[in-house]
Amino acid sequence: MSNQGSMVNRPPQSKRFVSTSQEEESEIDYFDYYYDDPGTPPGLIQPPEDASPTTIVLIDYNEASASRVQLTTPEACSDYLDTESVSWVDVLGLGSTDILKRLGQVFGLHPLVLEDIVNVPQRPKVEDYDDQVVIIAQMVMLTDKGDGFWVEQVSFVLGKHYLLTVQEEPQRDCFGPVRDRIRTNKGIIRKSGADYLAYTLLDAVVDGFFPVLEAYGERIEDLEEEVVTAPTNRTLQKIYQIRRELLALRRSIWPLRDAINTLIRGGSDLVGPNVEIYLRDCYDHTVQVMDMVETYRELASGLMDVYLSSVGNKMNEIMKLLTVISSIFIPLTFIAGLYGMNFNTEKSPWNMPELNWYWGYPLCLASMFAIFCGLVYFFWRRGWFENFSTIKKD
Amino acid sequence: MSNQGSMVNRPPQSKRFVSTSQEEESEIDYFDYYYDDPGTPPGLIQPPEDASPTTIVLIDYNEASASRVQLTTPEACSDYLDTESVSWVDVLGLGSTDILKRLGQVFGLHPLVLEDIVNVPQRPKVEDYDDQVVIIAQMVMLTDKGDGFWVEQVSFVLGKHYLLTVQEEPQRDCFGPVRDRIRTNKGIIRKSGADYLAYTLLDAVVDGFFPVLEAYGERIEDLEEEVVTAPTNRTLQKIYQIRRELLALRRSIWPLRDAINTLIRGGSDLVGPNVEIYLRDCYDHTVQVMDMVETYRELASGLMDVYLSSVGNKMNEIMKLLTVISSIFIPLTFIAGLYGMNFNTEKSPWNMPELNWYWGYPLCLASMFAIFCGLVYFFWRRGWFENFSTIKKD
Amino acid sequence: MSNQGSMVNRPPQSKRFVSTSQEEESEIDYFDYYYDDPGTPPGLIQPPEDASPTTIVLIDYNEASASRVQLTTPEACSDYLDTESVSWVDVLGLGSTDILKRLGQVFGLHPLVLEDIVNVPQRPKVEDYDDQVVIIAQMVMLTDKGDGFWVEQVSFVLGKHYLLTVQEEPQRDCFGPVRDRIRTNKGIIRKSGADYLAYTLLDAVVDGFFPVLEAYGERIEDLEEEVVTAPTNRTLQKIYQIRRELLALRRSIWPLRDAINTLIRGGSDLVGPNVEIYLRDCYDHTVQVMDMVETYRELASGLMDVYLSSVGNKMNEIMKLLTVISSIFIPLTFIAGLYGMNFNTEKSPWNMPELNWYWGYPLCLASMFAIFCGLVYFFWRRGWFENFSTIKKD
Amino acid sequence: MSNQGSMVNRPPQSKRFVSTSQEEESEIDYFDYYYDDPGTPPGLIQPPEDASPTTIVLIDYNEASASRVQLTTPEACSDYLDTESVSWVDVLGLGSTDILKRLGQVFGLHPLVLEDIVNVPQRPKVEDYDDQVVIIAQMVMLTDKGDGFWVEQVSFVLGKHYLLTVQEEPQRDCFGPVRDRIRTNKGIIRKSGADYLAYTLLDAVVDGFFPVLEAYGERIEDLEEEVVTAPTNRTLQKIYQIRRELLALRRSIWPLRDAINTLIRGGSDLVGPNVEIYLRDCYDHTVQVMDMVETYRELASGLMDVYLSSVGNKMNEIMKLLTVISSIFIPLTFIAGLYGMNFNTEKSPWNMPELNWYWGYPLCLASMFAIFCGLVYFFWRRGWFENFSTIKKD
Amino acid sequence: MSNQGSMVNRPPQSKRFVSTSQEEESEIDYFDYYYDDPGTPPGLIQPPEDASPTTIVLIDYNEASASRVQLTTPEACSDYLDTESVSWVDVLGLGSTDILKRLGQVFGLHPLVLEDIVNVPQRPKVEDYDDQVVIIAQMVMLTDKGDGFWVEQVSFVLGKHYLLTVQEEPQRDCFGPVRDRIRTNKGIIRKSGADYLAYTLLDAVVDGFFPVLEAYGERIEDLEEEVVTAPTNRTLQKIYQIRRELLALRRSIWPLRDAINTLIRGGSDLVGPNVEIYLRDCYDHTVQVMDMVETYRELASGLMDVYLSSVGNKMNEIMKLLTVISSIFIPLTFIAGLYGMNFNTEKSPWNMPELNWYWGYPLCLASMFAIFCGLVYFFWRRGWFENFSTIKKD
Repeated sequence: MSNQGSMVNRPPQSKRFVSTSQEEESEIDYFDYYYDDPGTPPGLIQPPEDASPTTIVLIDYNEASASRVQLTTPEACSDYLDTESVSWVDVLGLGSTDILKRLGQVFGLHPLVLEDIVNVPQRPKVEDYDDQVVIIAQMVMLTDKGDGFWVEQVSFVLGKHYLLTVQEEPQRDCFGPVRDRIRTNKGIIRKSGADYLAYTLLDAVVDGFFPVLEAYGERIEDLEEEVVTAPTNRTLQKIYQIRRELLALRRSIWPLRDAINTLIRGGSDLVGPNVEIYLRDCYDHTVQVMDMVETYRELASGLMDVYLSSVGNKMNEIMKLLTVISSIFIPLTFIAGLYGMNFNTEKSPWNMPELNWYWGYPLCLASMFAIFCGLVYFFWRRGWFENFSTIKKD
Repeated sequence: MSNQGSMVNRPPQSKRFVSTSQEEESEIDYFDYYYDDPGTPPGLIQPPEDASPTTIVLIDYNEASASRVQLTTPEACSDYLDTESVSWVDVLGLGSTDILKRLGQVFGLHPLVLEDIVNVPQRPKVEDYDDQVVIIAQMVMLTDKGDGFWVEQVSFVLGKHYLLTVQEEPQRDCFGPVRDRIRTNKGIIRKSGADYLAYTLLDAVVDGFFPVLEAYGERIEDLEEEVVTAPTNRTLQKIYQIRRELLALRRSIWPLRDAINTLIRGGSDLVGPNVEIYLRDCYDHTVQVMDMVETYRELASGLMDVYLSSVGNKMNEIMKLLTVISSIFIPLTFIAGLYGMNFNTEKSPWNMPELNWYWGYPLCLASMFAIFCGLVYFFWRRGWFENFSTIKKD
Repeated sequence: MSNQGSMVNRPPQSKRFVSTSQEEESEIDYFDYYYDDPGTPPGLIQPPEDASPTTIVLIDYNEASASRVQLTTPEACSDYLDTESVSWVDVLGLGSTDILKRLGQVFGLHPLVLEDIVNVPQRPKVEDYDDQVVIIAQMVMLTDKGDGFWVEQVSFVLGKHYLLTVQEEPQRDCFGPVRDRIRTNKGIIRKSGADYLAYTLLDAVVDGFFPVLEAYGERIEDLEEEVVTAPTNRTLQKIYQIRRELLALRRSIWPLRDAINTLIRGGSDLVGPNVEIYLRDCYDHTVQVMDMVETYRELASGLMDVYLSSVGNKMNEIMKLLTVISSIFIPLTFIAGLYGMNFNTEKSPWNMPELNWYWGYPLCLASMFAIFCGLVYFFWRRGWFENFSTIKKD
Repeated sequence: MSNQGSMVNRPPQSKRFVSTSQEEESEIDYFDYYYDDPGTPPGLIQPPEDASPTTIVLIDYNEASASRVQLTTPEACSDYLDTESVSWVDVLGLGSTDILKRLGQVFGLHPLVLEDIVNVPQRPKVEDYDDQVVIIAQMVMLTDKGDGFWVEQVSFVLGKHYLLTVQEEPQRDCFGPVRDRIRTNKGIIRKSGADYLAYTLLDAVVDGFFPVLEAYGERIEDLEEEVVTAPTNRTLQKIYQIRRELLALRRSIWPLRDAINTLIRGGSDLVGPNVEIYLRDCYDHTVQVMDMVETYRELASGLMDVYLSSVGNKMNEIMKLLTVISSIFIPLTFIAGLYGMNFNTEKSPWNMPELNWYWGYPLCLASMFAIFCGLVYFFWRRGWFENFSTIKKD
Repeated sequence: MSNQGSMVNRPPQSKRFVSTSQEEESEIDYFDYYYDDPGTPPGLIQPPEDASPTTIVLIDYNEASASRVQLTTPEACSDYLDTESVSWVDVLGLGSTDILKRLGQVFGLHPLVLEDIVNVPQRPKVEDYDDQVVIIAQMVMLTDKGDGFWVEQVSFVLGKHYLLTVQEEPQRDCFGPVRDRIRTNKGIIRKSGADYLAYTLLDAVVDGFFPVLEAYGERIEDLEEEVVTAPTNRTLQKIYQIRRELLALRRSIWPLRDAINTLIRGGSDLVGPNVEIYLRDCYDHTVQVMDMVETYRELASGLMDVYLSSVGNKMNEIMKLLTVISSIFIPLTFIAGLYGMNFNTEKSPWNMPELNWYWGYPLCLASMFAIFCGLVYFFWRRGWFENFSTIKKD
């Protein structure tokens, strides 16, 4: 089957874990993307090689009650889909091609939709298929060490009374509080439909960008300190790394903004007018995220300028030190060398008579001292000594 | 209550005080923003931790009379809202969640609106809810020392006969002159409706950017002088700081422009056609502010280039000095070293006969002097000495 | 009166004279702008502190005749405004608040219009008030020394049969040739209406940018020469100054383009279709001005890159000289130092026997000469000497 | 015939092979383009000079059967074009002007269309001629060594029941898997029309960009390592080369995106609604390719900054070494020179009495050692020694 | 007459010859533009001072026949204009204001049109006057030496059965092949109308950009080689010059694209639908030209970065050489100086006993050699010697 063969071409999924520590840097691939072998038919399903096994969790609720079951077969969903109660089918892990294909049949997904859901990562987007709205989004989460972020695709298929969500990783998501709100019947979630649920989860995805952004804000603040006091090659790498990761964040949020905007303006029947108000709020949040990303990118770019200038400044300090020491001692050494010459004083009264003067040596020392003082004064007047106190351990 | 828990995640409000003096720099956070914990329900009210206590001041006026009362309960407002006279309910401080919630009920605010008002800072925007127009804006004020600015969110809810304004800080705002105009019945304010009041306050917010901008104009002018005469690491930091703060200003004014434009074109019934003319004037002012911000950003960016070049120029001067001194004395020292050699003149007439010449030493000094003059002339012709006079104390 | 108090806040008008000579640089303020104190009522009239006294000149003409009178009171205008002949009321100087206010009443100006006319400088714009079209523009003129430009606001109020123009300065404007054309009945101006007059004056304002631009073109050409042959700190300042002033020019012309475009497309009844053709021509000129400004800005920005590279190149030349001289003489000095050592040749045949050789000194000199030649050849082969001839007096 | 004469002006086709290895670099011309001699009539056919001989392969299929024939004359196509079965006429090589002209007559191509197909390379575009849709695209393929890419124009002419494709090179294309799918009746291709075939091939062209992009991703990753650890002139060239080639990729994909968008929105009758869904997917892929190209361009541009800073850092390290060694030994050498002077100690007790002290030499050595230690401590405190361990072989 | 006076203000036309050779650089003015004195009436005709004498050539043709006559008076045209045959009136040279004015009357040109045609150079544009379409374009041609380009304005006035073209220079244009096609009745030109003729000439103008662009492509390719192997100040100037000239090219092609687009979409009756297809092709060519100009600009801008880095790299190599030589010889010279001291060995056994050792001198030499080897090894390990072989003659 050509399915197997073409998987050679896709970058190994394990690269997507993100960490900025130097040693593990080789594992980072923020710029991962899925692509087909040229010429393969559309609708081919190729989950990542190291995908987690697939599990299906169904949460079915209405105002009165809410239940949570773990399903063993995708077909078990079909009983719930047409009921009036809202059914949230949460699929975790893309490991089983078979289950995913059957899921596609149960939900009547277009082959291209199933492809977008399974062949991760795809670019965030919204597509409107009359009876279904498909949303592809990227969920980001701070790593445990807080020095990078995990990216994970989460896909939504919104129907009349159901919402299908498909996540790459079962271990982590940012939907926990939403599950709690359904279970404890907090807020209006149990009173609202599947569109409100979709909004709630999408909002959680968008809000998930903020803690990541905040970490970058702090890293930039640290660098602002570092770049003027003690700029090293490591500082340079950190600035580049931040620019690189912000570029990755931007790739996740930009298309999401367009997607949500499409959702609001698209006027799908599946999204009610009251949920549209909430979606506008969610849209504002994506704009704010983008805003912050762009701001941080500009700051990081400004830091690069500052770094370059700092390096030039440090060079100036180093050269000043060399120049001061050389300029002071080279003339003195010349004088010392002068009176180290061996002209024969006995052959002529003009041959270095100073050597035989009574005050010769003291006069020589005195003139050296005068030159020394003159040069020190010269440099002091120009303020070259003031800066030395500022070169701290760098 | 999860309300408490999630407040851990928001940046402490105290960071928002802005000052550019080096020592207090750690307190600055121009890039503050509010965000929910991912998954929290919409409409959650989370004022900043260090919010000031909430007070409510009501100013009720018509052409004939004007009164000012400090209200103790939000419910006390409701008597005024439906009268023909204009009621300006000015809420100062976000400290009391309870009062704010009750206020929301009195004014019939959508939960998302209340959230935007309380969970500061939000991105400036205008939202039109049939019977209410909600405006979120950022008010900036020069700090007392004039070396930075305070940012504060101010929210407007415009109704048929009332205007609700909510400010973060009770101590300072730029609405004093407006209160005076109402009290003293100056201009047309007492003859006009709530929409004119909203315009007046919004205009005061926009005009508040100008003094801040002017301070930046002066700081840039100072830097233009400093960057060519005496560029230091400190200069570099100042340029970066200005770019940073202008970026923050830009974040406040850009969305406000869009918001005011929406307000003019939105065609809400609550804004009369005569006030639209005034709003267009206000819009022109926001455009002018943006214009100045962009201009200053370009100037600051040009200053960075000048700084980088100045650093290179200073290096050139330093290196010229080193080169002049080294190039002159190294050959002379070599000659002195030459005649310091101890070849035995007695063993051979070829061994340093110069040492025994009658005019040996004077000839040697003369040749040294000739080399010295030749080199000085060489450098003088190339103009290397001219610049030394221009290196002042830097 | 708060009018007086708030004038403290506006930048003194005298700053607006523009000159690039170093000594007077402190007088330049290309980035001047008017702003109200936050909270002041709209329509407040605050001419600049050092405004010239106000004089009113009326030129009334039709195809048959043309007369020119200097009016003492604004009210004297009203006789002319409703006649069929075209009345050009030219107000020079903003010194008298009283006259300007009465003028506003005579012409029935909206308070905001009067404010825009008097509280200079404002951003160029066009506003359409049914029976009047208001145009705010910036007029630029080369200074006498040709090293900068004067900016002056000129406002137009176009009515059915009249045109009101308000200028800041009575001494200079670029309307002289237009007055001549009216007096001598040259071209179609006396046969055309007030709209054609407005076009003519606006066209003169736009054409006034070209001589200023040409001066910048020449300054950039001079700098292109200077930046590669003799780059100094002064060159850097000149480049920055040009970028700065072009930024100021751009601020004047950009909004003017939009304004003229609005005028053409706005479809006001006051502008006839035949004048629209002329306005399109005028619009083309503003586009050409903008084009040139952007081109010069790109050239100036490219010059900055060239400057930075030139500084680096000069450093290379300096370092090459230092390296050549040091590399040649340091080894020679070492050899001289070697034979200046005082090891006792009598204690051992191994202690510096060279000193007692018959050919010791000549051999030593020969080896020094060989090393010298070898190093010179080494540097010559690498072409390090070729560049020295190109370092002229810089 | 002027056809021959004007071919002198077009860049030789052989330049289009792309390789980044230094030796063959002169052969690369990513920025090739076709142009007519000014004044030549439209519709002139000028295939590249070194074009491959033209062969015509026809694949005719419907759901039931599929056949593949190699045609000797273009006229042989005409039997197939009007049948209900889908006819894919694949023309390989542009060598025979005669065959191509006759092909144009058989398919009824507009002279400008034939020109665009033959006079390669053209800018990608879509043109809609009522009964035909013409698509010009650029197909890219990794070179065998993987250090560059081949570009080849492929043109599509879509009719009711046929698809004409014209490729430059017969040896390689990315349509192999599509031919297999037709032969083995895999997927829905045999059940679908000519529009689906056009989509499939276009999708293969777009997917062909991904392996090329991936190679650039890897090259950038390698450079990120190299640029901080061992930046050389070669690194610089590699960065520039990557920026250059990404610019070339961008030129191929940008207009293709616009073209596909036009195809989707153009609403041609020849493209069925079900195929439009697939084209949207294909459009998403082009957006993703563009996205990656822009991202890589930003990374490469950031690398240039890092490179520049690294060069500055290396200079700092070099200068530190020079400064440390000079600063330590120059004062010591001065002291040594001092006591190498030949003042006559016998003529005066003030003439270098140290030389005759009992502890003179040890004291001298001790003071030298003290100075040495002091300076080493001075530099060590400033951290200048720490970096030396990090200058590895660079 | 003010006509004469104002000509002082326009840049002399002779400046427009373009050449990049250093000596003649002062003659270049790519950024020439025409402007009126502020206040002059519209419609004033001011040809350049050094304009060539005006000649009028009329080519009249239909499918059956074609004739070419040189006219002596503009009025002679009028016989041809209303006939069914196509009349191409080609006016060469702008020297005679009188002939041009009469021409304007014969063709019934609006005064502003005549101004745009005569007062060269103007910005390219298209204007639609009901019975005439006016096209202003810039024609570029490679100079004979191929190191720059000539710019010349060519204006088209398209009527029902005639086309008026006005060129600045009679010596050169790119319309020769078109004249041949008319004479020899090649292609469809004799069968088509004046609109097709206008397209043909416009296409010749656009195609004229390609040879110029190709020359820049080659110059950039040469610089790519030069900038890494042997960057000099001259290289820098060349890069700047190319950026400058590309900026000039861009100014010519950008507005032309907009103009042609206007022509296609404008829907003038004078341009038939079949010619629109050809114009779309012509539009594609202008897009391709713009594309290349932008690409070359980016490449040139990238070259500047490479240049800057190369300069830094060269500096590193120079400093490495200085550091290696200084670091090796300064310690050795110190040792030599040490044993050149004159401490009296007879006064104390501690005073330089080494001088009297039997193996003193050999030991001293050995230790010097050891230090020499150690330092060479130190630098060799760091790879400092490897690069020296790569500094070729630069």
